[in-house]
Amino acid sequence: MEIKEVVHQRAKEAKEGAVALLKATTEQKNRALQIMAERLLSEADYLKEENRKDLAYAEEKGLSPAMIDRLTLKDRIINEMAQGLRDVAALSDPVGEITRMWQRPNGMHVGRMRVPIGVIGIIYESRPNVTADATALCLKAGNAVLLRGGTEAFHSNRAIVKILKEAISEADIHPGAVSFIDVTDREAIMEMIRLEGLVDLIIPRGGEGLIRTVTENSRIPVLKHYKGVCHVYVDSDADLRMAEEICFNSKVQRPGTCNAMETMLVHAAVASEFLPKMAERFRTAGVTLKGCAETQRIIKDIEGLEEDDYYNEYLSLTLNIKVVQDIDEAIEHINRYGSAHTDSIVTENYHKTLRFLKEVDSSAVMVNASTRLNDGGQFGLGAEIGISTDKIHARGPMGLEELTCTKFIVLGTGQLRQ
Amino acid sequence: MEIKEVVHQRAKEAKEGAVALLKATTEQKNRALQIMAERLLSEADYLKEENRKDLAYAEEKGLSPAMIDRLTLKDRIINEMAQGLRDVAALSDPVGEITRMWQRPNGMHVGRMRVPIGVIGIIYESRPNVTADATALCLKAGNAVLLRGGTEAFHSNRAIVKILKEAISEADIHPGAVSFIDVTDREAIMEMIRLEGLVDLIIPRGGEGLIRTVTENSRIPVLKHYKGVCHVYVDSDADLRMAEEICFNSKVQRPGTCNAMETMLVHAAVASEFLPKMAERFRTAGVTLKGCAETQRIIKDIEGLEEDDYYNEYLSLTLNIKVVQDIDEAIEHINRYGSAHTDSIVTENYHKTLRFLKEVDSSAVMVNASTRLNDGGQFGLGAEIGISTDKIHARGPMGLEELTCTKFIVLGTGQLRQ
Repeated sequence: MEIKEVVHQRAKEAKEGAVALLKATTEQKNRALQIMAERLLSEADYLKEENRKDLAYAEEKGLSPAMIDRLTLKDRIINEMAQGLRDVAALSDPVGEITRMWQRPNGMHVGRMRVPIGVIGIIYESRPNVTADATALCLKAGNAVLLRGGTEAFHSNRAIVKILKEAISEADIHPGAVSFIDVTDREAIMEMIRLEGLVDLIIPRGGEGLIRTVTENSRIPVLKHYKGVCHVYVDSDADLRMAEEICFNSKVQRPGTCNAMETMLVHAAVASEFLPKMAERFRTAGVTLKGCAETQRIIKDIEGLEEDDYYNEYLSLTLNIKVVQDIDEAIEHINRYGSAHTDSIVTENYHKTLRFLKEVDSSAVMVNASTRLNDGGQFGLGAEIGISTDKIHARGPMGLEELTCTKFIVLGTGQLRQ
Repeated sequence: MEIKEVVHQRAKEAKEGAVALLKATTEQKNRALQIMAERLLSEADYLKEENRKDLAYAEEKGLSPAMIDRLTLKDRIINEMAQGLRDVAALSDPVGEITRMWQRPNGMHVGRMRVPIGVIGIIYESRPNVTADATALCLKAGNAVLLRGGTEAFHSNRAIVKILKEAISEADIHPGAVSFIDVTDREAIMEMIRLEGLVDLIIPRGGEGLIRTVTENSRIPVLKHYKGVCHVYVDSDADLRMAEEICFNSKVQRPGTCNAMETMLVHAAVASEFLPKMAERFRTAGVTLKGCAETQRIIKDIEGLEEDDYYNEYLSLTLNIKVVQDIDEAIEHINRYGSAHTDSIVTENYHKTLRFLKEVDSSAVMVNASTRLNDGGQFGLGAEIGISTDKIHARGPMGLEELTCTKFIVLGTGQLRQ
């Protein structure tokens, strides 16, 4: 078969799976997830055997040790995949929830019912565990998943999908509910994102290049995660000891993540008290600091910065520092240079808290908390399929609920349009 | 200026407007809407004068009387625009609502706050009243609107926007909140839908050609309305007198609308009792009937149909009739041939009601009610910016709430990531 045909065929299977899933009960879906977990564990040897084919190819191609590490299906990873499936089985089912219901003057009841989206296409890169994680969340929310993993993990992904499909058939769910695009050409992605009518949503998980290609070419709605240029604003009314802990944690706890702080904003009234001690602590931890002119006046030997630095997602131990005159300047800076991801204010002031919460246009806006806490698990969503930096459907961590939509339901007694 | 520059400039103004709107209060927005309404009324002569330029062009171009009628700014239309603005002012403001809030084990409170989307691009065709209607809804939900109306209504739209902009300035809202693309070339649409980063959502309102062009080329999320292939399923447990009224209303009350019935499904057990009388009533009202083989057996002289007819949105007094064996066949038919718009079951059976509500994958699923009731006004949403047939963000009528999204808010007391 040609690539185009393969992709079309797999999407058609997924569509059939999605339609069949409209009838599935919570019990059935949970049973499928439990069987999937058991099977992944009992077939660990087979998975590792298939994984070795990918590893051999990776070594041949000279991939970096870090990439090979991400690719390797160790027992620990297989256990985590199984546990992840069980965790999702334990979450409550969002599908069928009637979120609201009201009565109209003509007597009909109108409401909204939470329903699956349909077929969700996941385009991802090297880690094979995404295959199981994404499937679990999509399935629990009643969606069929159409998977397109990275070429380098092809054999591993295909083996995982084989096991998952056997498990769902055993739970009497249509096997199309988990569909895998079993061709490696990049052309398959371009085909996949043009199948409007068969695929309802695309979630790309990978580098900026992949996300850009998908966004620019997709005819299907895309939920994506661009970059995280996150801020902490230390207000004049901050508890400065708390501010120090929050800034340090936001930057240093895991600097390579999207919710780590990239720019620290400090109110002028507390800058000369706060900055020297904070800077020393950062430097001891190996953080490279870049400061605005006022920061340079307060801290000696600090590198300057240019306007473009404020747009940077360093993903490393580098930090911009800027002194601001008031909360207005802080909010304006965040809305201009930030990426609408995660921003936090440290303050004891009630009025400024409300203003920050209202006026900062980010997917997560925090008061007196580390930006690193913006995460599906930390927020209590149970699990996340990604973090959305889009402005529609979902902003921030996307859990089960974000993999559904609501339809209107009407309970009438013969109402007609006048 | 080149077209590209004009579009970019207007989008930039809208973006500035959207950022400024984050600070706007409900009172300010309502005041703007009230002033807009007053001004449209007091400037009616100016509007009609500008409108005459469009009408002269339309006559010169030989547009149909129906199109010229849609284009004409009569006093009645101007009054309706003003009333529409006041109606939206009277609706409650969705922005800032905290829809839920919960506490995490580390003591932080996490919640969701309803926030504007940002800049919403509206691409529409001939009716100039859309200019005021769309602006009202976008503004009330805290969004800046970037308007791109049809060429044939250019002078009318520009005049309306001029008045709306003066009104919002008087209410101390940034004039960029209402931006108008003041070039008529179609190229402007192509530029507009590629301005990701400036525009957050595109809502096309027009014919299938426009919607297809926008969807295929946009880099920005699109919420669209394709076609409405709607069904009524008359179950074996239906109250047949009620079924007759619902089917008649769904087809005949206004056949040219998207929520009118295109195919009537009738359970075999009641077909020979129900169909002859129903068919007679339809024929008396001038409806052309097309029937499946079984229907042809029951009703003499009825035209046959082909599978493709089931996909048709007639938008006229033509109706498909199909006899089905059970509710399974009815649901399967709807999910296969329908457009996921509006579908209704007529039944007195509790179990089948629940199955229909769950398993029919449409934006509005009804029990014992006319499909014609799927409408923002009828549902009590206050006003609607359109009906979405998409599967994410919003399905069905889109009111104020659908012009917002939710962000996460966190109230902490110094929480850090462990």
